[in-house]
Amino acid sequence: MKAKFEELATLYRDALLEDVMPFWERHSVDWEEGGYFSCLDREGNVYDTDKFMWLQARQVWTFAMLYNRWEQRESWLEIAANGARFLLEHGIDEGGNWYFSLNREGRPLIQPYNIFSDCFAAMAFSQYALATGDERSKEVALRTYENIWRRKDNPKGQYSKVFPGTRPLKTLAIPMILANLTLEMAWMLPDDMLEGSVEASLQEVMTLFLDAERGLLYENVAPDGGHVDCFEGRLINPGHGIEAMWFIMDIARRRGDQPLVHRAVDVVLNTLDWAWDEEYGGIYYFMDALGRPPLQLEWDQKLWWVHLETLVALAMGYRLTGREACWEWYQRVHEYAWPRFSDPTYGEWFGYLNRRGEVYLNLKGGKWKGCFHVPRALYLCYEQFDGLGKSGNGE
Amino acid sequence: MKAKFEELATLYRDALLEDVMPFWERHSVDWEEGGYFSCLDREGNVYDTDKFMWLQARQVWTFAMLYNRWEQRESWLEIAANGARFLLEHGIDEGGNWYFSLNREGRPLIQPYNIFSDCFAAMAFSQYALATGDERSKEVALRTYENIWRRKDNPKGQYSKVFPGTRPLKTLAIPMILANLTLEMAWMLPDDMLEGSVEASLQEVMTLFLDAERGLLYENVAPDGGHVDCFEGRLINPGHGIEAMWFIMDIARRRGDQPLVHRAVDVVLNTLDWAWDEEYGGIYYFMDALGRPPLQLEWDQKLWWVHLETLVALAMGYRLTGREACWEWYQRVHEYAWPRFSDPTYGEWFGYLNRRGEVYLNLKGGKWKGCFHVPRALYLCYEQFDGLGKSGNGE
Repeated sequence: MKAKFEELATLYRDALLEDVMPFWERHSVDWEEGGYFSCLDREGNVYDTDKFMWLQARQVWTFAMLYNRWEQRESWLEIAANGARFLLEHGIDEGGNWYFSLNREGRPLIQPYNIFSDCFAAMAFSQYALATGDERSKEVALRTYENIWRRKDNPKGQYSKVFPGTRPLKTLAIPMILANLTLEMAWMLPDDMLEGSVEASLQEVMTLFLDAERGLLYENVAPDGGHVDCFEGRLINPGHGIEAMWFIMDIARRRGDQPLVHRAVDVVLNTLDWAWDEEYGGIYYFMDALGRPPLQLEWDQKLWWVHLETLVALAMGYRLTGREACWEWYQRVHEYAWPRFSDPTYGEWFGYLNRRGEVYLNLKGGKWKGCFHVPRALYLCYEQFDGLGKSGNGE
Repeated sequence: MKAKFEELATLYRDALLEDVMPFWERHSVDWEEGGYFSCLDREGNVYDTDKFMWLQARQVWTFAMLYNRWEQRESWLEIAANGARFLLEHGIDEGGNWYFSLNREGRPLIQPYNIFSDCFAAMAFSQYALATGDERSKEVALRTYENIWRRKDNPKGQYSKVFPGTRPLKTLAIPMILANLTLEMAWMLPDDMLEGSVEASLQEVMTLFLDAERGLLYENVAPDGGHVDCFEGRLINPGHGIEAMWFIMDIARRRGDQPLVHRAVDVVLNTLDWAWDEEYGGIYYFMDALGRPPLQLEWDQKLWWVHLETLVALAMGYRLTGREACWEWYQRVHEYAWPRFSDPTYGEWFGYLNRRGEVYLNLKGGKWKGCFHVPRALYLCYEQFDGLGKSGNGE
């Protein structure tokens, strides 16, 4: 097995350093106006110049993270700086909230109607501050983090279309992203804030959103964790649930809480059993918990990030527990995903396959796909297999 | 040809009266709480009880319209009344705006974040007032109509996420729906208001949104009608454009403006040439005007309303102009749509086919599909072929 793990570590390292990062370095940096182009076609040509803040911030994070964790390449830091400058100059409104999108020159297009831009901005400036020691970046990360906690119970504010009181719902995305963000910012947060935030997010995810009997995470639940029989209340996003579970494994590993690791692994395996397309392979994008027609017309498509986050969760679960089911599922998902999503001809991964696993949109980046899930997952999978190759799994 | 037209008129009449309307009469009426269930599976079983105001209002309209135009069946009027009562009792907020959705009992779920609920409510109460002579319904229709005109330049109000000024866009849906709504309400509007509104909508659609060179309608344009190179600005919704064109033919026919009829027919034919899937047949749901990757992941699906509105536009265009291309395209779309969408086993039409024309979601109603496009199109196609059978086409 050692050789197999080493081979996988090499695959992930080479893909990260020789294929994926060069793709973004070559095609996505807007040296003229600052920031990045995220709308890139198969070959890397820019087909739209709008700047979506999720992706701008995530790309700063990716380049700064690799600078911090892989090696201190000046060219990576320059690319991170090109995005950080653009974000600082144009990204924040008067109330300290991060816009959703800007035009190429940085003029605001879409208001800060939710807190996800802020979450990714905080991640970005935390990594960037770590890379540069820049005090202003650290302050921006902290101020944004505090603002997220202030807004988190009403993240959409005036933009929320929900009539208050009739059907209160909590959404998985919030505690899930806070769990990950808090760990990202651990180096700069006071200990009590860090522990309190991680614990709160963990409890919400593992008690409110997890249906312990079914072993599935629901996207939206009543404030007491109950299921609500409506479209939102029946929605399962398998990739989201699986991604949340590696965030939880990450927390559990730091705490040395092996039973929690196992519980997270159980959910991953269970979600895969339930959400795997037995006919064509791959993981469905959206499902209805009761098998009723989902609202999302793209429900049966196979998305890059779903499969990458699953590879991370399985590799991490295997490394931390040695459970054979993780390894079996890892291989199955690997065999499905690599030949279909990766594009060695032009670099990076395709984002969207149809149910049959054929490339549906051959873009490499767009409004929702940028320089983030692919490199992060390649890096994390490398880390798991490198660890497995060196020392075997954690059991 | 006469026999062919008569055969088609019979097909549409039978489908309307013996298949589609009985489906909604049997399965959708909520006699207990008022209003209608729109979420019906293939057989007509209710799978969700939320009440989406577009569909509630459209169903009132459909039953009242058939009562007014087909025959004065008491059972139809009772079903319309069951929806109208529910809407009046629960549908309007304190500012006179119509909610987007209610729960089964009528408590508001989603705020009036746009004016489309209001447009369909005005249509509904106009037809219902015509059917019943009820003064309150007439008042509600008029008050709603005035409110729509007041809100139309900022239809989303506080819910608009667009940052003002950077990239102003106008959207086709507004003038298009106003053109249709104004004709619907012609019987109760003062002459100058009627003429002014129709003329304004017509001008917007045919000058701002129509790209005369390409013969295509754009979903979103700059205030001067210019194209904007962004996702929204490149968006074409072929079914929407074709539906708008039969609204325009309807206006042109009333005015006796035969050149305008021909211009509208040109756009229909041109849109079909451009948006027809030559590989699998059917009309795409969304396209990018420049052939770039569309944002809508469902872009290649084949939707019921797109094909029904196209059948209406082609039958109407053929009746009004006698142009052979209308008849040829009519037959092509008919041969595609009828065998795939209609479900003689359980009644009504399927709503969503995948690109290959296979049933994708086998529901008969949902959040966006209710008792509207199918019966309206069947009625209008019946009317065209009945007219053609009696007197030939208008040329």
